[in-house]
Amino acid sequence: MEPTRWLTDGEQEIWRRTLAVLTLLPNELEGQLQRDADLTRFGYGVLAMLSEAPTRSRRMSELAALVNGSQSRLSHLVGRLERRGWVRRERADDDGRGCVAVLTDAGYAHLAAAAPGHVALVRSLVFDALTPTQVTQLGEITAALLTRLAPPGDCPASSDHGGSNADGR
Amino acid sequence: MEPTRWLTDGEQEIWRRTLAVLTLLPNELEGQLQRDADLTRFGYGVLAMLSEAPTRSRRMSELAALVNGSQSRLSHLVGRLERRGWVRRERADDDGRGCVAVLTDAGYAHLAAAAPGHVALVRSLVFDALTPTQVTQLGEITAALLTRLAPPGDCPASSDHGGSNADGR
Repeated sequence: MEPTRWLTDGEQEIWRRTLAVLTLLPNELEGQLQRDADLTRFGYGVLAMLSEAPTRSRRMSELAALVNGSQSRLSHLVGRLERRGWVRRERADDDGRGCVAVLTDAGYAHLAAAAPGHVALVRSLVFDALTPTQVTQLGEITAALLTRLAPPGDCPASSDHGGSNADGR
Repeated sequence: MEPTRWLTDGEQEIWRRTLAVLTLLPNELEGQLQRDADLTRFGYGVLAMLSEAPTRSRRMSELAALVNGSQSRLSHLVGRLERRGWVRRERADDDGRGCVAVLTDAGYAHLAAAAPGHVALVRSLVFDALTPTQVTQLGEITAALLTRLAPPGDCPASSDHGGSNADGR
């Protein structure tokens, strides 16, 4: 085993701040969505990703990759969203196997009502907190990190949603 | 209400990547700690923060701020760590009120065994994935984000632990 390359003092400070952001930012996003829209971050993401598809529907496997969740976690979530009338599941047309999730009109309306408040929070906590240069750097840094994080074939930063609209529109 | 300032296409792409990192990076860290050290990220952070204190002990309120957790969540966690013999709670000496958490020798040994593997993962997923310039930028970006995230008086990036050692040493 090679000797541990401990973090330098400077790296430690940066890592400590990064851990704080990894904890506090999701908490803020989740808290706002729960309070204002009765949704988890994961649930909001699923509704948003469905709303961006031309048919307002996506295969479950594709949806899991887009929201960076496992298929089993997604399956539980979609079950809950289905009971609230915001999503329904249908068998995939093309090959008779697999399953697609479809955003209902009620689900679209719920997302549309939730989006302005959520986007305002994202802007306030992230984009307004950074200079334009830092926003660009954040894009480059997150792209670099995702090359080590994204599971093969399941890449959330891949180009297959390059034409889609925003999270939270 | 002012009109919603929707994210531009470029901002959307950056936000999508940021969300992916916010989901995937904690998952990787948590998975490794659970598998290799039977610890959550939060539990590892508590042991690490105690190990850095000169007396290997900290007030519970201070500890909560350092690991960005609520006092109630910390209290539950410390109870679990106490049952495993890694931490013990004592009444604070100075004013007879409040409570301090103390890292036991067994807790220190457990942390020392866990640290090399965890630091190696952090280096591999974060520091080795970025250029030195990007590491510096990450430090500046996270500092800027924390000005909007840290609760007043509870700031995880404050200078009160400037002389401490690393997370995960």
